[in-house]
Amino acid sequence: MSGITSIHLVENALLVSIHDDVTDTEIIDLQDTLSHRISEENVRGVVLDISALEIVDTFVGRVIAQLAGISRLLDAETYVVGMRPAVAVTLVELGMYLPETKTALSLTHALSQLRRA
Amino acid sequence: MSGITSIHLVENALLVSIHDDVTDTEIIDLQDTLSHRISEENVRGVVLDISALEIVDTFVGRVIAQLAGISRLLDAETYVVGMRPAVAVTLVELGMYLPETKTALSLTHALSQLRRA
Repeated sequence: MSGITSIHLVENALLVSIHDDVTDTEIIDLQDTLSHRISEENVRGVVLDISALEIVDTFVGRVIAQLAGISRLLDAETYVVGMRPAVAVTLVELGMYLPETKTALSLTHALSQLRRA
Repeated sequence: MSGITSIHLVENALLVSIHDDVTDTEIIDLQDTLSHRISEENVRGVVLDISALEIVDTFVGRVIAQLAGISRLLDAETYVVGMRPAVAVTLVELGMYLPETKTALSLTHALSQLRRA
């Protein structure tokens, strides 16, 4: 899986950091690992940290949407944290509204929302 | 940005007034400015005042939808205020149900809903 992505358990959520040079094969590995860990560790949420991403394209947008879709099907909510303004603008211009995800300002905010959920 | 749009901070929300002669380039500026201000000023909501709009078309509908989409991705709720009945009818006829937005009768109503959120 190299240095591109890391998955850490924080409280009842899995924190996934997505690096900006993520590739197709790494994403397939990540989907696989993440889905198993959601299922085995019985987590309530997945927090995708995308603060490393300065720009996005349809590939990265699709990656986020797919990870959120997988998480929802496994009964975990997805929070995206660290989104830059330019990334939000680009995603919407690409028509990628990420309906499956919630956004939180930081990991702390995401965890506090998950505690209340 | 000229006289078409203005952004004001009111309590914990950004009030955006959309004028009826908004153009493509102005909207791109607005998206950019708004997304940065949401992120920097850590606001909870965006209130889009569209009372100046007497008619809408798919362009304006898409503008509203995109502003709401960007706001949601940056963790701010969007309220649309001042919508005329004819505008609501047209938007629905165009198939633009604006699922990302909430509607409030006035700025006061929107702010009180944001306070409770």
